[in-house]
Amino acid sequence: MNQIITIGREFGSGGREFGRRLAEELGYEYYDKEIIAEIAKKTELSESYVQQIVERQPHRLFPITVGQSLAYVNKYQNDLIVKVFNAQCEILKDLAEKSNCVFVGRCADYILKDYKPLKIFIYSDLKSKIERCKERNNDNLTEDDIRKAIKRIDKERAKYYEFYTGHKWGDKENYDFCINTSNTDIKLLVSVIAKIFK
Amino acid sequence: MNQIITIGREFGSGGREFGRRLAEELGYEYYDKEIIAEIAKKTELSESYVQQIVERQPHRLFPITVGQSLAYVNKYQNDLIVKVFNAQCEILKDLAEKSNCVFVGRCADYILKDYKPLKIFIYSDLKSKIERCKERNNDNLTEDDIRKAIKRIDKERAKYYEFYTGHKWGDKENYDFCINTSNTDIKLLVSVIAKIFK
Repeated sequence: MNQIITIGREFGSGGREFGRRLAEELGYEYYDKEIIAEIAKKTELSESYVQQIVERQPHRLFPITVGQSLAYVNKYQNDLIVKVFNAQCEILKDLAEKSNCVFVGRCADYILKDYKPLKIFIYSDLKSKIERCKERNNDNLTEDDIRKAIKRIDKERAKYYEFYTGHKWGDKENYDFCINTSNTDIKLLVSVIAKIFK
Repeated sequence: MNQIITIGREFGSGGREFGRRLAEELGYEYYDKEIIAEIAKKTELSESYVQQIVERQPHRLFPITVGQSLAYVNKYQNDLIVKVFNAQCEILKDLAEKSNCVFVGRCADYILKDYKPLKIFIYSDLKSKIERCKERNNDNLTEDDIRKAIKRIDKERAKYYEFYTGHKWGDKENYDFCINTSNTDIKLLVSVIAKIFK
C-alpha cells in the first residue's frame, strides 16, 4: 500500500507550505487545489462553483428566491453536494492508489481512512498566523482584516469538515501528529520532520 | 543552553514509557518520580505527602476538622502548597541547567519556559489506554475500574496543571508536538521520533 500523508491546517499556519515541501523532500506527489479542477472536470461544474461547494456550508450556497419552491431548491442542492463529494472521494482514492502522496485539506484523512494515512494537523498561535498572512498579503489588507479572514476561513473549514466527517476539525483525537508552527521556519521544520519517513 | 524535552501525557497513553525510552535513545537524563523524592528532601515533608500535594487539588488535602479554625487551615495549607511548588521549580531549573534532559509531567513545560523546551503531549484513544493499563495491571482491576481510574487521574492532572499554569491541560496550543499513540508500539514510535533530534 502506498504511503499517504494527509494534512489538515489552520489558515495562516503554513500548513500548505509544509505539505508542499514535505512532498518535495520525500519525492511524493502533492495534491491540493488540483483536486478542485479534477472535480470540476468529473462533474462538469465550473471550478469556482465546486470551490464554493467544497469550502462552504451547504445552506449558504442557495439563497431562497421568491416564487421558487424551497423543496425543489433543497433537492437540487443536495444532489449537487452529494455529486461533488462523491467525485472528490473517487478522485482522492484513485490518486492514493497511484503513488505515495501528500494531500492538503479536502477531508482526505477521513475519505482515505482505509489507506491508513498518516494524519497531520498543522496549527499555530494567532500572532504567527497574522505574521504569515502579512508576508503574502497582496491586497493591502489591514491587520484587522487579516484577523477577521483567519477567523472566518477557519470557521468554514471546521463546518465543512464536521459536515462530512461528523468529527471535530482540529481536535487532536482525529490526527496522529499535531504540529505547532508558531515562530517556526517551515522549511527548517520540514527538513526535521521528513527524517521520520526516511 | 541544554536541550530540554517536556512530556505531558494522558494516563495510559504510554507517555512515561515514551519519555524514558526517548531519553535513553538520545542519551539525555530522565526525570519523573525522582522529582518527588527531591522535593521531599528539600521541604522535609514525606514523599507520600508531597505526592498528594503535587497531584491533587489543594482543597482536597485538608478535611475540615471540628474545632479547627478554617482560616488557620487555609493559611497552613497555602504555605505548604507554595513551599512545595517553589521547591519543585528550583529543582527543575537546577536539573535543566545541568544537562540535556527529558521531564515527564510536573508542569515542566511551564516552569522551564525560559529554557525553550520542546513541549510534547502524548495521548491516545480510550480503547488503547485501557489495553495498556490491562497489560500492566497488577491489582486484578476490572475494565470498568480501569476506565474510572483513567478518568479520575486525567481529571486530577488537568486540575493540577490548570491550577499552576492557568492553561488548559492537553490543549494543543500549549505544546509543540502532540502525538497520538493509539494502536502504536511505543518502542517503535520512539525510534522514529528520536530521528528528529539527531
